This record gives sequence, structure tokens and C-alpha cells, in this order.
Amino acid sequence: MNKLRIGICGWGNVATGLFKTLQTNADQIKKRCNLEIEIIAIGARRDNPKCDPGNAIIERDIFKIMDHDIDVLVELIGGVDVARDLILKALNNKKNVVTANKAVIFNHGDELFSVANKNGVKLLYESSVCAGTPIIKLLNQELAASKISKISGMLNGTSNYILSNMEEGMEFEPTLKLAQEKGYAEPDPSFDIEGTDAAHKIGILSSLAFGSSLPPKDFYIEGINGIHKSDFEYAHEMGFTIKHLAVAKLTNNSIDLRAHPALVKLDSYLANLKGVRNGIEVETDLLGTLHIAGSGAGQEATASGVISDLIYLSDSKIKDVNNINESIELVKFIDLNFQYYFYIEASDVSDAMPSISSIFTNKGVSIESISQKENLNNDLVPIIIITDLLKEKDHHELVNNLLELDSVNTVRSIRIEAQ
Amino acid sequence: MNKLRIGICGWGNVATGLFKTLQTNADQIKKRCNLEIEIIAIGARRDNPKCDPGNAIIERDIFKIMDHDIDVLVELIGGVDVARDLILKALNNKKNVVTANKAVIFNHGDELFSVANKNGVKLLYESSVCAGTPIIKLLNQELAASKISKISGMLNGTSNYILSNMEEGMEFEPTLKLAQEKGYAEPDPSFDIEGTDAAHKIGILSSLAFGSSLPPKDFYIEGINGIHKSDFEYAHEMGFTIKHLAVAKLTNNSIDLRAHPALVKLDSYLANLKGVRNGIEVETDLLGTLHIAGSGAGQEATASGVISDLIYLSDSKIKDVNNINESIELVKFIDLNFQYYFYIEASDVSDAMPSISSIFTNKGVSIESISQKENLNNDLVPIIIITDLLKEKDHHELVNNLLELDSVNTVRSIRIEAQ
Repeated sequence: MNKLRIGICGWGNVATGLFKTLQTNADQIKKRCNLEIEIIAIGARRDNPKCDPGNAIIERDIFKIMDHDIDVLVELIGGVDVARDLILKALNNKKNVVTANKAVIFNHGDELFSVANKNGVKLLYESSVCAGTPIIKLLNQELAASKISKISGMLNGTSNYILSNMEEGMEFEPTLKLAQEKGYAEPDPSFDIEGTDAAHKIGILSSLAFGSSLPPKDFYIEGINGIHKSDFEYAHEMGFTIKHLAVAKLTNNSIDLRAHPALVKLDSYLANLKGVRNGIEVETDLLGTLHIAGSGAGQEATASGVISDLIYLSDSKIKDVNNINESIELVKFIDLNFQYYFYIEASDVSDAMPSISSIFTNKGVSIESISQKENLNNDLVPIIIITDLLKEKDHHELVNNLLELDSVNTVRSIRIEAQ
Repeated sequence: MNKLRIGICGWGNVATGLFKTLQTNADQIKKRCNLEIEIIAIGARRDNPKCDPGNAIIERDIFKIMDHDIDVLVELIGGVDVARDLILKALNNKKNVVTANKAVIFNHGDELFSVANKNGVKLLYESSVCAGTPIIKLLNQELAASKISKISGMLNGTSNYILSNMEEGMEFEPTLKLAQEKGYAEPDPSFDIEGTDAAHKIGILSSLAFGSSLPPKDFYIEGINGIHKSDFEYAHEMGFTIKHLAVAKLTNNSIDLRAHPALVKLDSYLANLKGVRNGIEVETDLLGTLHIAGSGAGQEATASGVISDLIYLSDSKIKDVNNINESIELVKFIDLNFQYYFYIEASDVSDAMPSISSIFTNKGVSIESISQKENLNNDLVPIIIITDLLKEKDHHELVNNLLELDSVNTVRSIRIEAQ
């Protein structure tokens, strides 16, 4: 078993979320990666009544974390200036650093990465951009051989939630209030709705894909607070909807970097991603257009990104690329239950309907809906039935029983996949 | 610069595609990963007139590739039996193996992975499942800390293309013919349309996520050849569409593994992925639901997956997590051009319309469409204009000029993002 010894700085929601996830998913990480992640010390200026740090050493002076025998510092204090000092100290002490801090990467990325390189250590930051959507590793590994020409998407879940509701007919102010009630928007929502958050994220992605600088030298930022409900109606009439897009686009050797509301085609991928979700479209030479979408960053999503960075650093990677789980069983298909769509062609409908229904009833299968459609050219009548759950083992017999009816000509059935 | 010495077995479309991509994107790989991938030898039973192998040694007996000093064998011969023998020989010779061969992984995965583990080498296969959609590394790395409960999606681009066309009103047979003409379906399309291809893919993903065996012991497979155009109409009426889904779902300690047509909700993520695309939905404990979609596997997509496996094996990973590109320039936002949506509230419309138009004309901006909407409560009239491309530097002046008109009350404008 490989071991990774970490120190965590910060002891708020994100840090305690990581602490708990490292406990609940420890078995998963051992099994998949042959790795044990041990929390040696926690830099916490004060206790957090919500979380008992167990055996970890607590340092009130967070800068003392580096004095412990750790492989990685996990920076979760947030903010810019102290976080920068902390990360610099760790890197200069030859410690790898994992951070979920978007602001510090955006504002001091170039400096921090250069110090990391000089010291031969890594600074990883998967959770800093759309933690629920693993876009950093996707760009950095899966797409490492591809030339990227454009990254665009909705990088701010709050804005996407508000615009999705406005698309359904709500005005801006009540939607913002609703988002605040649901915890999707902060009491001071300006960072989200003015576009700053999305702009920071696209700045970081652009530096990764195109090597642009951090902080970026130029940038256009506009938020969603100028959009009216009626704009959606007019946009719809013309085949568009409105999204808050963050874009980094390479043309020849220039990039344009921007975050602003934009009309996008109603049938586009991005138009159809609604609610508190992030969705990103990446245009590449080798893979064409790639899409990835995930939920906005919660405690657990952030923890997941931090842990995937830790696994990457541990060099454990995946122990056995495949690891047969002897205890896992395959369910026999005939033991599954599905709701079903039935298409039945019948002649003499007044007679057929009761006999069809009784075949379902006799098998103990409830009918959720039944409807008779327009006659076909051959005068047969299609009957559409949606059933409640039925057992696969009864399905074939049911179809055969239906086909045995004199008035039934054709039977087709398709399973319904529950969402 | 790190070096990786590889041998390629097979010299058909996929292999020559890899060969060419390794040349065209060599700089990209050097820059991003500090890695040079050198092709030492090629196992080719015959020459391929489409591709000159340069300085690489050609072996007519593909099994002799292992005699060369290579770090990795790339298996691209396809098929099952010889491919299995070849991979086994390489693994037993302590060579890492990268393959794009779905059939051999599906049929002999357990055996091959176990031999790889015994020999302390890796067998990687990103391109074997939906090469245009990097799902293997996503499951294996980004989601390594997450517990996965369900994987579902459209894993066969041909089936998705045919069903998408049927949804638009075509019948099965002509759509299949069209797919064959466009090169999306093979002359013998049975592997795709009978569901086998999708079933193989979900079998591999299930082994990765859940540790189920390869080949799987039980499996339900049904293709799309029983679906009629009219099923889409009836499904639509009830808020559904029809997709060919491959599903691996964990319930307690059992998985069900299946590939068959299914009704899915019209507003679901999967329903909205149309054409020759793969789309996958992964349900996890930490990240919630994650979506990824990409194009079906072409030569270049397959090459990309193979190269990402090679980069992974090289241990080069990413040289500098960030690597500032000094030569890259940020375009000034005011130098960009966008089509624009304008919302203008005007009184006295007959007078306003010509003056509004002339403001655009004077700036040299063409109007693509202009329409007057229903009066508002305050008797003002909304006018919606879609412009042709206009320069950002003219935009503010345009808005100001419009606001200077006596009859104009409000002006809002939103950029249109070209697809």
C-alpha cells in the first residue's frame, strides 16, 4: 500500500468536507489506487464544532504545517494574500501543493507555477475551476496531445440557475432571491452575477490550454444583471436562448478572453444545460468538439477534486487497471423490472380493448396510460400503452399472450429508463 | 526531454492515423508534456501505400516487434485471437501495452489484466471505448475517489445517428442506407445496429467502475432494428424520445448490465444528444451526475486516446502544470466583432424606425432582421434588431447614439455567440 502524508490548511466547510470524505471513501481509494492518504496535521486558527479532527495534530499558526513530515500541503484557507504566502512557503520547502483556491491561482498563477517548477514540485488545482466538472485534468491529460482552439461554456452555476429560471418566465430579482434562499447564491451575489467568478475560471482554463498569463493582461467581463425576462421571449422567437458564457478562443496566435451574456442557438449543446450546472465545450483538432457537464461545486465535489489531485501526486495512479471484484454479482436480466411502452395494432377495437387490458391485469401489471390512435391505412388501429413496472420474466409471455388475440396484429415493446 | 520508445503492430487506418498524428502533433506533445515519442518498429504484414513509415524498422512477423528495444507495444491489429497472443507475449516480456481493440479487452480482459499485474506492467485501452470521449481516464483518475452507482449512455454513434434521423421522421431502412453512404455505418452494420458494439463498451466500463468480469457472465443485448418511426411520434406525445442505451447499474452488491432501446424523458441530457455522438452519464456519490459527450471514433480520435495512454505511461505527465507562452497575444476586446441582439423601446414608432435604422447604417452596420413587437403597458413599443457583425469599438457609440434619439427610451444589447 502506498502512503501519502498530507497537511491541511484551513478548517472551514471545504476542509472539513475533505476530512470527512477522506474517511468515508478511504476504502474506495485503497481499492482503486492502492493508496492510503494520511492527514498528519491541520492548520486551524480555531476549532470547528462541526468536525472532530481525530488524531491529526492541530497547528494554530498555519505556517507551521510545513514543519511536519508531509508530502503535500492542501491549501483550503481561501483568500489571496495569505494563501499566496502559504503556498510560496510550501513550494520553497519542496512540498507539493494542492489548492481549491481560484482567486490565488487567477491572481498569482504565473508566479506560483514558476516557483513550483524551480523547486521541482507540483501545484495542482483541479477543484479551483468547476469542482463538480473535472475539466483541469481533462485538458491536462486526456487532451494533452490535442491542439485546442476554443473553450466556452457556462462556468458559473448561479448565473445558469438564474437565467434558466428567467427562461421559464421569472424576472431577475425574484429569481436571484430564490437562488439565495436555496443557497445557490451568496448573500452578496455580486461575484457570481457580475461575471467575475466565470471570468476567473476561464482565465485559468485559458492559461492551461493556451499558455496565457495569470493574471491575464486583458479581459472583458459583463454579468447577467442587465438581462430581462422579455429578452428570452424575443430570443426564442428567433431560435436563440441566452446564456452567460465564458470564452477563450485562439485565432492564429491571439486569444480573446471574455465572460458575458450571449445569445446561443436553442438546439445547441450549451442551450440545453439548465439549472445549477456547469457545462463546457472544448474544440480540438483530434477529438472534434468535446462536452463535459457537472454540478456546481459543493463540499463533496471540491473534496473529490482535491483527492484526485492527491492521487495524481501520489503516483499510485491505478493499482491494477482492472481489479475483478469477486463479491459482485450480475443481476439476471429476467429479474429486473421496467415500465414499458407497448405498441399494439388491433382490428375491431371495441372488442380488442377489454381483452388486451385483461391480459395485463391477469399478469398483475397495472396500466399507467392507454390510448387509441388514428386508424392506419390498412384500417388497423394503433393502441399505445404505458405500463407500471413489470417483471422481465413476464414480458415475453405478455407479448405472446397479446399476439394470440385474434384482433391483435402487431406488438412492439420498448423499456422506459427511469431517470 | 523524456523519451518513450514504442512499437506499433498493425498498419491499417488506425495505425497510420496514429503515425501521422504523432508527427503533426509532436510539438504539442513536447511542449505540453516534455515528451518525445519515438516509433522504433512497425509490425506490418504488408506495406500501406497511403503511408510511408520513414525510418521505422518494418517487421513482417508482428511478433518480432518485442525483440526491439521498446517501452510500449501499441496493438492496432484488431480482431481477437492473434491480438490476445500478441498482447500476452508483450506483457510476459515486461512491455507495457496500449490497445484500441475493444473486442480483445471485452473477451479476454480479466486474463490480460491479470498477466499485466503479474508482470508489473500496464495494459491501457482508452481508445477501445468511445475514442472521441475520454471516459476511461475519467473513470480511472478524476473519479477514482468517487463511488459510482450508474453508468448509462449512448455508446454507439451509428445507432444514435439512425435514431436521431428517425426522430425527425425517417424510417429505419433509408436512414441506415444514409448512414452507410456517409461512412457512419459499415457495409455489414449488424455489430452496431444489433447492440453488440454498445454492449461490449458498457461491459468494459462496468469492469472498470464495478470490477465485474471480462467477458461478463450475463448480459442483455437488443438492437435498434425493431424501432419504427411511429414509435417516436407516440413517445413524443407522452414527453419521451427513444435512445439506444447501454447501462451498468449498481444496486447493493449487484450490477445489471444491458444494452437496449429505451424511452427517455425528452428534457433529459441524453435525449438532447443527437447525431453521430456518444454521450455518457455517470452517477457518483461525490460529484453527483457527470456528463461527457464526444464524437464517434475516427482515426484521429483513436490516435488521441492512444497518445494520452502513452503520455500516461511515460510518466512525463505535464512538464510544468502551467507553461506561459510568451508569444501568445491577448486580442483587445474592442477589436472583436460580434453579431448583436438589440432591444430598443421607442415611442412614436413611425418616426423612430427610420432614424434607428439610419444610425446603424451610418456606422456601416447591416441589419439582419428588425421587428416591432406588441405595445408595452406604457405604450412604448419594443423593437428587436439582429445585426450583422459589428465592431466592439463601435458598440458603445451605437448605443449612445440610439439613446440620443428623442423617441428612444431604453436600449439593451446582447452579443450572439457564433456556433
